[in-house]
Amino acid sequence: MGPRAPGDPPTERTRVRRLPERGVYDREGVYEILDAGFLCHVGFDPGHGPVVLPTLYGRSGDTLYIHGSPVAGMLRSMRKSIPACVTVTHVDGIVLARSLFHHSMNYRSVVVFVVPEEVTDVTEKLSALEVISENIVPGRWAEARKPNTSEFTQTIVLKFPLDEASAKVRTGPPGDDEDDYALDVWAGVLPLRQIAGQPEADPRLAPDTPVPLYLSQMVEPG
Amino acid sequence: MGPRAPGDPPTERTRVRRLPERGVYDREGVYEILDAGFLCHVGFDPGHGPVVLPTLYGRSGDTLYIHGSPVAGMLRSMRKSIPACVTVTHVDGIVLARSLFHHSMNYRSVVVFVVPEEVTDVTEKLSALEVISENIVPGRWAEARKPNTSEFTQTIVLKFPLDEASAKVRTGPPGDDEDDYALDVWAGVLPLRQIAGQPEADPRLAPDTPVPLYLSQMVEPG
Repeated sequence: MGPRAPGDPPTERTRVRRLPERGVYDREGVYEILDAGFLCHVGFDPGHGPVVLPTLYGRSGDTLYIHGSPVAGMLRSMRKSIPACVTVTHVDGIVLARSLFHHSMNYRSVVVFVVPEEVTDVTEKLSALEVISENIVPGRWAEARKPNTSEFTQTIVLKFPLDEASAKVRTGPPGDDEDDYALDVWAGVLPLRQIAGQPEADPRLAPDTPVPLYLSQMVEPG
Repeated sequence: MGPRAPGDPPTERTRVRRLPERGVYDREGVYEILDAGFLCHVGFDPGHGPVVLPTLYGRSGDTLYIHGSPVAGMLRSMRKSIPACVTVTHVDGIVLARSLFHHSMNYRSVVVFVVPEEVTDVTEKLSALEVISENIVPGRWAEARKPNTSEFTQTIVLKFPLDEASAKVRTGPPGDDEDDYALDVWAGVLPLRQIAGQPEADPRLAPDTPVPLYLSQMVEPG
């Protein structure tokens, strides 16, 4: 069997069992969810059972990149190319049904099964660092000081092919049992979202340093 | 060796290796982070490598509870009491240093190593469902229709003792290399937080049904 692409039919382990109508398998659906975030949870087994740790990521084409220190347990384990799972979840709302049983969450999530590969090519590694940085704060890479050789060496970059990815999405109002619609209980969705507040300057920053446009554009107006 | 409590010294696998000064081991620190959220990422190995899935939780004393359908792969696997890892992460801000190397994230996270146990006692199971519900929307349990016997049977509750938990917290401004403070680059923190918007009524709700106080209290003013 050749490598799978996100648009291919689900494999046995990427098939969404619980509520098949919530499964999203197409490539664009997976990419859109990944590109809407920057924090993933990575699961791996360093030898004493599963560990799940949060880390930052960026996507370029069919590849997800993460980075970290070679001293960190996660990077130390995963550069050995052990199987891992990368999950990204956006919570969009709390779904309040008339019955507690039908309470739910509106969300978008992607689960990717991977065997991590360390990026050693200098050009790809630098490009991957830029991809991660630009995914978090677009515009920052051009302004901040670039890594020097020592910093570059102290950074491990891993890549995860997006071959075996699946997404799940729930949207919309609650689905109650027909009998329960007569109950006098408020029902609907409490929408949730992550927002950026006003940038807080480093105390050691020169007082008149303007907030860069790329940063003020990320702040929620209001 | 007896069971560990969150206040005990770290075990080999809960010791925070990377930046020891970011480790928080005390019980209250762990509880505070858990109580500030309702979504965790659970890692387990159903037999073909690690899987990480998002799910809702609630805490009562030294115990974390999750629930789900017996049909769901995660619950099916974990009710067999296989080792798992539960991770909760709150992103508080993006830390922008003058050098890309010192960019970071302000966050609070808890990692718990567990062997899940299915809750079969009816009283504890009902209480656990209330704990999860009240952790997400305090006040909802009293108003919505309670589970009937069929719904109760269709719900699996797992408990995770908080014996082997560790927390990591990063706060504050960037830490740049001394030479870099002279650079003319904005530095500081972009604060991030999750907020609730105005509740969206179910289209099938009677038009004059008021939004409950417990829900409108969760909405960010502004």
